[in-house]
Amino acid sequence: MLRLEINSDITGFLQELQDMMNGHASLLAKTQRGDPVYKDSLGWLDTGICAGERELERIEKKAAQIRMRADAFVLIGVGGSNNAARSVIEGVAHRSGCDVIYAGNTLHPRALREMLQKLDGRDFYIDCIAKNFETLEPASAFRGLRQYMDSRYGASAAERVIATGTPGSSLWRLCQEEGYDFFDFPETVGGRYSAVTNVGLLPMAAAGIDVRELVKGANDMQMQLRSLGPQENPAYRYACLRRLFDRHGYHMEMLSSFEPELRYFYQWWKQLFAESEGKDGKGVFPVTGEFSEELHSTGQYIQDGPPAIFETFLDFRQKMDSFVIEPDSRRDGLDYLDGLDFYDINKAAQQATIRAHSEKLPVMTISAEAPDAYNFGQLFYFFEFACALSCGMLGVNPFDQPGVEAYKQRMFKLLGKTK
Amino acid sequence: MLRLEINSDITGFLQELQDMMNGHASLLAKTQRGDPVYKDSLGWLDTGICAGERELERIEKKAAQIRMRADAFVLIGVGGSNNAARSVIEGVAHRSGCDVIYAGNTLHPRALREMLQKLDGRDFYIDCIAKNFETLEPASAFRGLRQYMDSRYGASAAERVIATGTPGSSLWRLCQEEGYDFFDFPETVGGRYSAVTNVGLLPMAAAGIDVRELVKGANDMQMQLRSLGPQENPAYRYACLRRLFDRHGYHMEMLSSFEPELRYFYQWWKQLFAESEGKDGKGVFPVTGEFSEELHSTGQYIQDGPPAIFETFLDFRQKMDSFVIEPDSRRDGLDYLDGLDFYDINKAAQQATIRAHSEKLPVMTISAEAPDAYNFGQLFYFFEFACALSCGMLGVNPFDQPGVEAYKQRMFKLLGKTK
Repeated sequence: MLRLEINSDITGFLQELQDMMNGHASLLAKTQRGDPVYKDSLGWLDTGICAGERELERIEKKAAQIRMRADAFVLIGVGGSNNAARSVIEGVAHRSGCDVIYAGNTLHPRALREMLQKLDGRDFYIDCIAKNFETLEPASAFRGLRQYMDSRYGASAAERVIATGTPGSSLWRLCQEEGYDFFDFPETVGGRYSAVTNVGLLPMAAAGIDVRELVKGANDMQMQLRSLGPQENPAYRYACLRRLFDRHGYHMEMLSSFEPELRYFYQWWKQLFAESEGKDGKGVFPVTGEFSEELHSTGQYIQDGPPAIFETFLDFRQKMDSFVIEPDSRRDGLDYLDGLDFYDINKAAQQATIRAHSEKLPVMTISAEAPDAYNFGQLFYFFEFACALSCGMLGVNPFDQPGVEAYKQRMFKLLGKTK
Repeated sequence: MLRLEINSDITGFLQELQDMMNGHASLLAKTQRGDPVYKDSLGWLDTGICAGERELERIEKKAAQIRMRADAFVLIGVGGSNNAARSVIEGVAHRSGCDVIYAGNTLHPRALREMLQKLDGRDFYIDCIAKNFETLEPASAFRGLRQYMDSRYGASAAERVIATGTPGSSLWRLCQEEGYDFFDFPETVGGRYSAVTNVGLLPMAAAGIDVRELVKGANDMQMQLRSLGPQENPAYRYACLRRLFDRHGYHMEMLSSFEPELRYFYQWWKQLFAESEGKDGKGVFPVTGEFSEELHSTGQYIQDGPPAIFETFLDFRQKMDSFVIEPDSRRDGLDYLDGLDFYDINKAAQQATIRAHSEKLPVMTISAEAPDAYNFGQLFYFFEFACALSCGMLGVNPFDQPGVEAYKQRMFKLLGKTK
């Protein structure tokens, strides 16, 4: 169960928060039902649509085949096509499945060569995830990988190629012509909302993640968020707090954690909010705090810089790990740590940081039980739902991204693309 | 040679910029001479003091011994004690030396265990870098590593232990008692300004970096920045532009690059500016753009969000790498890329992004010749000097970090540390 706790003293804001929570109650109801205005983008809202029994069975069957015939899985995708899977694959404490190699997220020649080198001598499958197949990074990496596979697997290479895209697209047509396995990228789900669909789930399953548990977590969160009223709804409360702090000049939100394995979850969260909110000259800018390391970098600014950041800590309540400090006869001045567990030291650093920061800026904490598949499912749904609400309050479309065309058009022109 | 270019149309700001450059000319002169107010923190200003022939000879001799007797080098340090070395070790295109394993930058039990596992079966040296040895992450990891070394090397373990710290400190005393090799962390240099001292140079040398070239780059940059007047001085120009944009509401600076190997240089830069400027309620917040990947994340916000970010691109002019796209008989719709080099595609994406962003926000580009030791030396000195100037204009002390005490005191209390 996710919990949302406010760590700072926000007494002065309470009335305003209450007014906001009352004022947007109809937005909550509309979001819970599914706002008809956005009906073409709401596939993620009902986990039964994109991650039902039929989808799960096909994913699990394919993943079992991959894990039997390969020890590596190449996820070709960028942004919404890889962030969610990567979050979970690199974030869960325990999994047993293929190593996952990330491709299609760079145009850099050295990075491409190093990616291919990792495959030498290994058996692998590839999955090209691209909703419209016009994005340069995955499309070009897909070609390079297919050519590498010709040299490795000859005529049987096609058996090891999967694509996830839109039926009818040029990627789909290529799959028909070449006999590649094809999975649907649901048409009513944008990349950054696609965690709990074929996009996120197939790579996770290949990597040994229990995707059924993840879907259960998302589904349980859905039941909660789509039924609870304004006063009890944690996603609504989170969205209102974001807008409240934004209104008071805190234009950056720092997602902070003392769990280093959340590094890629941060990336997923950053895209979700930056791309959903950042339009029409509005939006909170999402930044991240990888603590304790980055306390030695941005900590000073957070504590003493301008009052422009509010902070959301992400915490897990269950003890997952242990490493006890043994006494040492050499005089290193650390005797006060003898017998302590790094788990507790890390938590003490977190508690101290939350206290220190909450005296200077608005701080809240979202805690989940453990970094496992179920709780990642909860977190995905929680933030997606909260983001849609937050955009609604801001008055922007949560599901489009018109601004990314600006550089793309210039780039395609420079590269001589004519259609 | 570093070049600074302004990509946006800043015609409307030119007079104000000129006034600023005239108005702070005496600050430039004072910084070039070394402001007596900060005399205890200016060891970095003259590369001859902390990275002279005597230091270089000792570093090179020790590094040669390490590379002969070990294939891994454990850098124990956090923040200013590891960011610079890590920038270069992970950033240069070619090096041949020890693998470097990073420790002392986390309190997380799983991360600690995984770090020790990487050492199984390998021969290694460790270097604990800690100016005052009160920082918990390196001090506790140092103890854990010494204990692991007892089990691996027995009585000869001490030969493989190095520490870099302040003479007279408890770390220094421990080295005297245990017979560890000791290098000075110069007393007049703070962590974030310590790239071109024993702190940064010894790990780099162990990793096979030509530190003499790096020092030469820093020294050439020093000659330039400490002699050129306001109109010609690129660091002064950069500092004035930062303050100009800050004054006009652009309170975040995004350091952006299409070179993925700069990832750790970003961290170094982020600490330098966040910790130097972020005080007294002032300062620009440093954020980073790892492109092209993050165009699919923050790109939308940069293009269409609030006008709150100015962007500094980092670019290398020399072609370092190549990967040509071969034609493909399968119909993937990418024929317009046939025969193109990813190097050029990546540069086209960069050019398109700079053009698109510079129409919406202030954009400048700092370009260096190549990601090699010499140019990293140039970049370190350039940004350190510019940061000191930028803080001077802002009216804050570039060399202290009083705000980081807030969480530390609470943490030590929670851990029962009594002195």
